[in-house]
Amino acid sequence: MRGIAAIAGIGQTDFSKSSGRSELQLAAEASLAALADAGLTVDDVDGMLTFTIDNTEDNELMRTLGVPQLSYTVRTPHGGAGSAVTVFAAATAVATGAAKHVLVYRALNARSGNRFGRARDPGSSPTKGTGWDFANWLAPYGALSPAAILSMQTLPWMRARGLTNRDFADYIVGIRDFAATNPAAWFYKRPITIEDHQASRWIVEPILRLFDCCQETDGGVALVVTTTERARDLKQTPAVVLGAAQGVGRDPGSPGRAFAMAGLGPQDLDAAMIYDAFSPHLYMGLESLGICKEGDAKDFVASGAIARGGSLPVNTNGGLIGEAYLHGMNLITEAVRQVRGTAVNQVEDAEVVSMSSGTNVCILGRDRK
Amino acid sequence: MRGIAAIAGIGQTDFSKSSGRSELQLAAEASLAALADAGLTVDDVDGMLTFTIDNTEDNELMRTLGVPQLSYTVRTPHGGAGSAVTVFAAATAVATGAAKHVLVYRALNARSGNRFGRARDPGSSPTKGTGWDFANWLAPYGALSPAAILSMQTLPWMRARGLTNRDFADYIVGIRDFAATNPAAWFYKRPITIEDHQASRWIVEPILRLFDCCQETDGGVALVVTTTERARDLKQTPAVVLGAAQGVGRDPGSPGRAFAMAGLGPQDLDAAMIYDAFSPHLYMGLESLGICKEGDAKDFVASGAIARGGSLPVNTNGGLIGEAYLHGMNLITEAVRQVRGTAVNQVEDAEVVSMSSGTNVCILGRDRK
Repeated sequence: MRGIAAIAGIGQTDFSKSSGRSELQLAAEASLAALADAGLTVDDVDGMLTFTIDNTEDNELMRTLGVPQLSYTVRTPHGGAGSAVTVFAAATAVATGAAKHVLVYRALNARSGNRFGRARDPGSSPTKGTGWDFANWLAPYGALSPAAILSMQTLPWMRARGLTNRDFADYIVGIRDFAATNPAAWFYKRPITIEDHQASRWIVEPILRLFDCCQETDGGVALVVTTTERARDLKQTPAVVLGAAQGVGRDPGSPGRAFAMAGLGPQDLDAAMIYDAFSPHLYMGLESLGICKEGDAKDFVASGAIARGGSLPVNTNGGLIGEAYLHGMNLITEAVRQVRGTAVNQVEDAEVVSMSSGTNVCILGRDRK
Repeated sequence: MRGIAAIAGIGQTDFSKSSGRSELQLAAEASLAALADAGLTVDDVDGMLTFTIDNTEDNELMRTLGVPQLSYTVRTPHGGAGSAVTVFAAATAVATGAAKHVLVYRALNARSGNRFGRARDPGSSPTKGTGWDFANWLAPYGALSPAAILSMQTLPWMRARGLTNRDFADYIVGIRDFAATNPAAWFYKRPITIEDHQASRWIVEPILRLFDCCQETDGGVALVVTTTERARDLKQTPAVVLGAAQGVGRDPGSPGRAFAMAGLGPQDLDAAMIYDAFSPHLYMGLESLGICKEGDAKDFVASGAIARGGSLPVNTNGGLIGEAYLHGMNLITEAVRQVRGTAVNQVEDAEVVSMSSGTNVCILGRDRK
């Protein structure tokens, strides 16, 4: 599949704490923006793809936009961790001819509507599509919110590496610096210092402070995935899917598969977008992608390597913590902008940019035809 | 994609009105049966796929079975109408190398647990994954149950063709005859006459009687989809995916795409499995597949063409009405058995068999290498 598919269009709404619109409308706005960006119309759409947990049905969005018909429509599981999978699955669709132009969308009122970040009723049933069996495996241990669940998973991992909350400040100050110059970011014009981070209140002591947690955001994001060949004739510089892999399981090998497909390694990345619902995700991502060896992420981040001007800038939009939490999808649009050369915090001559969420990876790059 | 993928294994639990087991257990039992049928083990599974509305999470089933890792896992939307899509989507996965062996599963306690067939609370929210916006578009018109919803959609279509409930008796007597000789069927050893059908009570007058409605079933079904090349080395005669297409929209063209991919037409079918949650679906299916011209299904069915010994036997397991309602998936296993030559109501020398659900189609056939 190397190089066969490309992201030809991206769209996003404003990111806010109170959109004042339905999730359907947000999905439609982002979709129309992505199509306009690509130079396509709703008549060109013949595939759709979103998360299992998205509340907007494909046929409802079809009716709203006026899309005449679809020849491919599926859903990707596991919430935001599955965001990179949307590109992978859409690539399989266009590579096989199942669809010509797949519209990927994700829209949610996650602050004014259903707030994912909150503690849940301990007796509630498994959260469909997330893979979390809440009542049986999480609530009995006191893990009632995403922050608590992540912390429970993370603490042994942090201890093995000597990572503390103070280390996270090194990461957060860097992405708040990116967010400060990104008008789309919640923390636009609001950079912080290490002291500010350390003064923010505990959410899960001793792991997460307030500033280690992602936003709760209202908004929508959409992508148009097509073949690289078609994308060459469209309006924008194609962001070619050089490699992509999904992975579920203890040791799924998916970063290795994505890099192997691309014929590249972590050393070839010019920038990386790494799912950061909470600070520890960033460190786990750096190690699982092979950017850092096991245990080395702490010093790598502290060195400034992933901040502005560093050797490998990461989450240049401010990440999910500094810009918005669109379940990872706004890291894909940022990766595309970096490949196009149009990011607000553009990495000079960026050619190859990864986007990863959990164990799922896509590697985007310039068209090398 | 023609001929690249094949169904290498099928498995199903007993079909009942009270399984006495969890849906997870039913999914696991069907999965192990499908793997054993193919001559594979859980270690070979690297893809999973089910319906968005299935209650068993992929990672829960992985843990239960001991599947080590997945490199592909997505969900298909739109309930039972999407059943044929599982084969289509799994085919895109194996054709692109996204996975080697995709385990497709669907398990539900639809009688002892959540009964889909019942009327719903008029104020309830959209049924996620089905595409039905219940509170806004259905309940206000009194369509509170699947039978009522289908009837509302069907009546103009029936009137345009002069179809009445009496015509449905011709279909039902035929599939009850198939069910009568199928030990897996709910109506095993219980054939009926046209008079019996016409004496069964109205569910939605003047459209559906009790005997026009599918079962509510507890049970599980699983498939193993892989490449035809790999399937040749496995235990069973491969059921090759000659053609497959998904379609959403008013005129999605998907049957035409599936036949074009296969290089075949409706006249080449030796048997057809057509989603029949309610009798009218059968007539719609015959016409949308092009087996009958518009308006001709009534006479075609009345002629006995689709019954035992007819020119094109349809739903030879008794269908969803006579055997069980596993959301269409038990029509896929029956299509595979017909291609293998192992069905209880085997069509002599069957080589090409369609399975269709709504506007979604797959065409299975013998390996012609």
